[in-house]
Amino acid sequence: MKELWIIGLGPGGGRDLTGRAREALEKADVIVGYTVYIDLIRAEFGHKDLRTTPMRKEQERCEMALELADSGKVVAMVCSGDPGVYGMAGLCYELAPRWPEVRLEVIPGITAACGGAAVLGAPLMHDFCLISLSDLMTPWEKIEKRLRAAGEADFVLCLYNPSSHKRKDYLRRACEILLESKSPDTPCGCVREIGRAGETATVLTLGELRDAQVDMFTTVFIGNSQTKILGGKLVTPRGYLQR
Amino acid sequence: MKELWIIGLGPGGGRDLTGRAREALEKADVIVGYTVYIDLIRAEFGHKDLRTTPMRKEQERCEMALELADSGKVVAMVCSGDPGVYGMAGLCYELAPRWPEVRLEVIPGITAACGGAAVLGAPLMHDFCLISLSDLMTPWEKIEKRLRAAGEADFVLCLYNPSSHKRKDYLRRACEILLESKSPDTPCGCVREIGRAGETATVLTLGELRDAQVDMFTTVFIGNSQTKILGGKLVTPRGYLQR
Repeated sequence: MKELWIIGLGPGGGRDLTGRAREALEKADVIVGYTVYIDLIRAEFGHKDLRTTPMRKEQERCEMALELADSGKVVAMVCSGDPGVYGMAGLCYELAPRWPEVRLEVIPGITAACGGAAVLGAPLMHDFCLISLSDLMTPWEKIEKRLRAAGEADFVLCLYNPSSHKRKDYLRRACEILLESKSPDTPCGCVREIGRAGETATVLTLGELRDAQVDMFTTVFIGNSQTKILGGKLVTPRGYLQR
Repeated sequence: MKELWIIGLGPGGGRDLTGRAREALEKADVIVGYTVYIDLIRAEFGHKDLRTTPMRKEQERCEMALELADSGKVVAMVCSGDPGVYGMAGLCYELAPRWPEVRLEVIPGITAACGGAAVLGAPLMHDFCLISLSDLMTPWEKIEKRLRAAGEADFVLCLYNPSSHKRKDYLRRACEILLESKSPDTPCGCVREIGRAGETATVLTLGELRDAQVDMFTTVFIGNSQTKILGGKLVTPRGYLQR
């Protein structure tokens, strides 16, 4: 059986790797990934055949992995977080029909929503939406529509890719849409470099978030109408004490 | 320092446990949890002081954990999946002010959305909403509003607690709301007993899902307008090949 395993490293890399992911990396002949993610596992898996491709070369990376798997190597492709959440799992499945003998398996990892929530406290205890603010592949109008829907239905939100060099004001625009339906006092949080050296967490209000500067290494959390700050932590009650 | 660690076991238990979670369980003096979850780790951590409380006794379970931590024990409370997603993290933080010397830490796990998505293929590659259909602590009207908003804004959906003995028709009602805005041909998937013996996955359409029987051990996925079935797998393109 020809095998391609698409593996989530979790945020950061080491500590949040699952037992299943570690076992797969140990078994693999070749490990493929974006340079930065390969560097995260180099200390532990540097004796393996490691292949890197640069940022933005997602299609080439998946094709390389499928090609190597088709040649008979057991291939592990690594992604930050969870490969099934804005990772490479979908693209691998889309390309896979060209290599029909390769069997794909996704090995999940801790996505930034879960990793960042744990740092902030417990913001995602109730229904939530995960939205990427990147409009590289999604029209901004669609992103706006989703933000508005999420705000009006009182979801907690977790925002991926809240900023980049070219999209400096996107988080401000998102906050302005959410302020149509959410209070400016809504508790929010930002976590930067989740699980890495230099991890930082900030708790602030939606009104403050609108004017905050965040970068592409930041994951943003916006509470629902019940979210509160308790001892510096962001907590969305599920309702156990309120029923 | 008095410590309470709230730990996610991932779906099932063993294989998806992270290195950080395993290390914490090894260090803990006492492990507290719902009976079923304690049983999942008994084989490996049976030599520890294990304390269980039955279903529905969430508040008592958290109070027991905080009380034990306050007495000087290092306490690990285990949750299925991720403690930060419909788990015990929020309730522990809500109760914690009564034990001000206890420091809480959430150690994330793979939530059923990520674990189930990996089984089905790659359904969560684009913006998604996570909604629990349980109305034990949330008015059904609020759940309906969130379903309608998620459907109209073309989110992928992942539904937790889609059914119970008392709520046999909730998934049907949810599907009917989603059918107001989504095509009956929308690809969907169900995963039962994720990561456990007897795990099963089904791919079906939204029209078929409306009439499907699912139980409380099932996690349900509903595609967006782009989701397709490729080689039996549920795949939501992110847009790499479409741009």
